[in-house]
Amino acid sequence: MSLRLSSSGLKDGDATSLQHIPVMADTLLRGLGQVMLQNNSYTGLLFLAGIAANSLLFAAAALVGTATSTLTAIVLGADRASVRAGMFGFNGALVAIALLYFLAPTTLTWACVILASACSTVLMTAMLTAFNVWELPVLTAPFVLTSLAFFLSVARFGRLYPTGHLPTAGLPVNAAVEGVVTGATVGEGLLTGIGQVFFQGNVVSGALFAAGLFVSSRRACAAALTGSISGLLVAWGMGAAEPAIRAGAFGFNSVLTAIALASVFFASGTTSAIYAVAGATVAPFVAAACAAALEPLGMPAMTLPFVLTTWVFLLAGRGFSKIEPA
Amino acid sequence: MSLRLSSSGLKDGDATSLQHIPVMADTLLRGLGQVMLQNNSYTGLLFLAGIAANSLLFAAAALVGTATSTLTAIVLGADRASVRAGMFGFNGALVAIALLYFLAPTTLTWACVILASACSTVLMTAMLTAFNVWELPVLTAPFVLTSLAFFLSVARFGRLYPTGHLPTAGLPVNAAVEGVVTGATVGEGLLTGIGQVFFQGNVVSGALFAAGLFVSSRRACAAALTGSISGLLVAWGMGAAEPAIRAGAFGFNSVLTAIALASVFFASGTTSAIYAVAGATVAPFVAAACAAALEPLGMPAMTLPFVLTTWVFLLAGRGFSKIEPA
Amino acid sequence: MSLRLSSSGLKDGDATSLQHIPVMADTLLRGLGQVMLQNNSYTGLLFLAGIAANSLLFAAAALVGTATSTLTAIVLGADRASVRAGMFGFNGALVAIALLYFLAPTTLTWACVILASACSTVLMTAMLTAFNVWELPVLTAPFVLTSLAFFLSVARFGRLYPTGHLPTAGLPVNAAVEGVVTGATVGEGLLTGIGQVFFQGNVVSGALFAAGLFVSSRRACAAALTGSISGLLVAWGMGAAEPAIRAGAFGFNSVLTAIALASVFFASGTTSAIYAVAGATVAPFVAAACAAALEPLGMPAMTLPFVLTTWVFLLAGRGFSKIEPA
Repeated sequence: MSLRLSSSGLKDGDATSLQHIPVMADTLLRGLGQVMLQNNSYTGLLFLAGIAANSLLFAAAALVGTATSTLTAIVLGADRASVRAGMFGFNGALVAIALLYFLAPTTLTWACVILASACSTVLMTAMLTAFNVWELPVLTAPFVLTSLAFFLSVARFGRLYPTGHLPTAGLPVNAAVEGVVTGATVGEGLLTGIGQVFFQGNVVSGALFAAGLFVSSRRACAAALTGSISGLLVAWGMGAAEPAIRAGAFGFNSVLTAIALASVFFASGTTSAIYAVAGATVAPFVAAACAAALEPLGMPAMTLPFVLTTWVFLLAGRGFSKIEPA
Repeated sequence: MSLRLSSSGLKDGDATSLQHIPVMADTLLRGLGQVMLQNNSYTGLLFLAGIAANSLLFAAAALVGTATSTLTAIVLGADRASVRAGMFGFNGALVAIALLYFLAPTTLTWACVILASACSTVLMTAMLTAFNVWELPVLTAPFVLTSLAFFLSVARFGRLYPTGHLPTAGLPVNAAVEGVVTGATVGEGLLTGIGQVFFQGNVVSGALFAAGLFVSSRRACAAALTGSISGLLVAWGMGAAEPAIRAGAFGFNSVLTAIALASVFFASGTTSAIYAVAGATVAPFVAAACAAALEPLGMPAMTLPFVLTTWVFLLAGRGFSKIEPA
Repeated sequence: MSLRLSSSGLKDGDATSLQHIPVMADTLLRGLGQVMLQNNSYTGLLFLAGIAANSLLFAAAALVGTATSTLTAIVLGADRASVRAGMFGFNGALVAIALLYFLAPTTLTWACVILASACSTVLMTAMLTAFNVWELPVLTAPFVLTSLAFFLSVARFGRLYPTGHLPTAGLPVNAAVEGVVTGATVGEGLLTGIGQVFFQGNVVSGALFAAGLFVSSRRACAAALTGSISGLLVAWGMGAAEPAIRAGAFGFNSVLTAIALASVFFASGTTSAIYAVAGATVAPFVAAACAAALEPLGMPAMTLPFVLTTWVFLLAGRGFSKIEPA
C-alpha cells in the first residue's frame, strides 16, 4: 500500500475520504509542507526527513502535533477542503516541536503537546474567522500564540520544567558586537536559517528543507535561499552576534517572509521579487525588536517576526498599484 | 414604592423612561447581573448582597461605578435598549471595585473611580463599534483595559497609592509546587472561584453569586460550578500554588468562560457543554500566561484570560460545523 | 521660482504633476503639516521653522524623512491624492526625528533613517487597508511602531548606539511627587507641550508650531492650547514630576487628541469641544500608563497615547447620538 503522494491539486474525492489511511497520511504530510506554505506531500516528507536527520524526538513530535491538530479539526467539523490541504496541520506540528524544544519531555509535557496542538486548531479557526474581513492569511500566528501561552504558564505551574533553550527573563541592554563573521558563518547560516523554521539549527536539516521546497516550487526554494542570505547579511551589517548569525537566528523569519511575498501571495515577477527582498531585509529588524520586547518575559519570538512583517507587506501590497496580487 | 424587578424581557416603555427611579434602579441591578452575562435584576440584587457580605466598601463602589457608567451612557446618547439591559453598567461596576481593591481609598482615588467608570463607557462604546464587524461581544475587556491604565499610572502619578493587593513588578521565574491541595482547598476554591469574579475571595460571596445565577438560569449556575471546578483541577494538576487555588485565582476565568460558552452564546446542548468544559480547561493556562506576561509591569490580569479565551472559542465556533450558534 | 504654497484645496492638475519641484516641495510641507493633522503647506513651513529654531539637525532629519516616505509612496504607486495631501509624509518626518533623537547620528543611523522612513510608508499603507473596515484614521501609529522596532533592535544590533534620551529598561515603581509646580512650570509647559509633538521641548518651537496651526485653523490652534493646558493640569493634580510637566511630557498627547476631536473628525461645536477636553483629560492617564508599560523595555511611548485615546473617542463617538460626525 503506497502513500498517495501528490504535488498536484486535490481531487474532489479526496476531501470526502479523510478516514482512509493513505489519504490521512497525505493530509498530514501536506500539513508539514504548509509550515513553509507548500501544499505538497513530497515536500512534507522531505521536511520530516530533515527534522529526523537532526532529532528523532522532534520528528515524532511533528507527527503527533500535525495529527492532533488535524484530527481536532475533523472532529469539530472544520472546512474539509482546508483540512485536506494541510491547513490544520502546520500550526500543530510547530507547537509540538516548540513545546519539546523548550520544555523537558515529561509525561505531562506530552499531555500538553496534545492539548496545545488541539488548541492551535481552535485558535487557527478563530483567526481564520476574524481575518476573513481582510482576506488576510493567519500564517503561523496560532502556533506562536499557543506556544507562548504554554511557555508563560511555566511561571505559575510547578510541574512544567523548561529546558536550557528557554531564555531567562531579563531587561534588554544595548548589544555589543560579538565574534567575527567568517565564510563559515555565512555558509552555515545560509542553511541553518532554513533549518530554524522547524527549530533545527542543523545544516543537513536546512539542506533537506531546501530540497523539499525545490520539489514543490523552484521559485519558493530560490526565495528561501535569498531570504536566508538577506537576513544574515542585514544582521551582520547591523552588528548582531556571530553565534546567532551562524545558528540561523536572523535567517528563518526572512526565509518565510521571502517565500510568502515572492512565491505565494503576489504575482510572480520582478516586482514581487524585489518586494520580497525588501521584506526579507526588514524582517531581521522586526526579529531583533520582537526578541528584545519578549526579553523581560524570558520568551522566544519564534516566527512572530515573519507573521508581522508578512501581514504588513501583504496589506500594504493592496494599496500599491505597482504590486500585483497573485 | 417597590423596585420593578423583572427577570423577563424588557418592555418598550421601559427604554424611554430611564429617568424614573425604579426603572433606573432596575437598570443598575441588571448592570450588576451582566458582570456574569445575566440580564436579570434579581440576579444583580443577589450579586450586590454577595459583595456586601464580604465588604460594604466594595458594595458601595459597585453601585457608584454602575451608576456612573450607566449615566455617562445616557448623557452621551448611547443605545437605549442596551443601556436598559445593563450593558453599560457591568464594566463600571468592575472598574470601581478594582480601583478600590488595588488603590488606597483616598478622595483622589474616588475621583478616579468616577472618571474611570465614565471612561469604561467610552471604551465600551468604541469596542462595540469596532467589534461590530465580527458581531463579537466585547465582554469585560473595557473594564480590564480601563483598570490597567489607571493602575499603570501609579508609576507616574505620585498622588495614587497602591494597596498591598497590587503585585510588585518583577521578572517571571519558574514556579515550584507550593503547599498541599486538600479537600478544604477544593471546597473553598469551588466557591471563591465564583466569588473572585467580583474580587471577593469569600465562600459566602461565592455562594450568593451562585444563587444569583440560579435565579436567572439553572444552566448558567451549573456552568459556573463546573467551570470553577474545572479551572481548579487543571491548576492543581499542573502544579499551581495551593493558596492561589484555594483563593479561587484559577477559577473565576473558567467560571465566566463556561457561562459564556455553555449558556449564552451557543445553542444549549451536549456539544456546547463539552465545548464549554474545553474552554474552562484552557482558561487556567491563559490565566497563568497572562499573569506571567503582566509580571514585569506589576499588573493583575483580572478577567483578561476569560475575555481572550471566550473570544477565541466564540470565533472558532463559527468555523466548526459541530458547534451550533444560539 | 517661488514655492506654490497653498492653504486651499488641491487642484486636479497638482495630483498628476508630483515630479515638478514646486509641487513636490508643497507636498513635503503638507506632510509636515499633517503631523498635526493640517493639510496646509504654510503650516508645514512654520513647523519646519519651529524645529529649526531648536535644532538644525532635526530640521534636516524632518525633511529627509518626509521626502523618503513620500518618494517611497510615489515609487510603489500609492494613492496619488493622498500623497499630494501629505498623508505619506508625516510618519516619515516623525520617524526620522525620533531616530536621530534617540540614536547617535552615525552613518549607519542615517541609513536607518532612510530605511525606517520608507518602512513607515509600507506600514501606513498596510494600516490604511486594515483600518478601512472601520473607516478609522491610522494617525501616527505607523511612526510609533516603526520607531519602536528600530529602538528595540538596539538590544541585538551592536552597531546602533542609543543617546541619553532613550530610557534605560527598568521595572516600574510607584512614583513620588517630585518638585514644585510654579507659574513658570505652567507657562513653559503650555508651549513645550506643543513643541514635544515634534520632540522639541522648546518654548520658541512650541510658539511657532502654534502659529502654524493658527494659519491653518484657529479652532485647531485653540484646541492645541486647551489640550496642552488640560494635560498639564491633570498631570499636576495627579502628582506627576515637575520636570516632566515643565518639559511638556504630559502635554503633547493631549494637544494632538484635542486637535483631532475638536477640529478635525467631529462637527465643530460645543459638544465636540467638550468631548475633546474629555479626551485631553484622559490622555495623560493613557500617557502615564503607556510610559509605565514600556518601562521594562526601556522604550518611549511617543504619540502612542494620542493614537489610542483618539481611536477610542472616535469609535465611541459613532455610538453616541450626542456626538455629531464632521
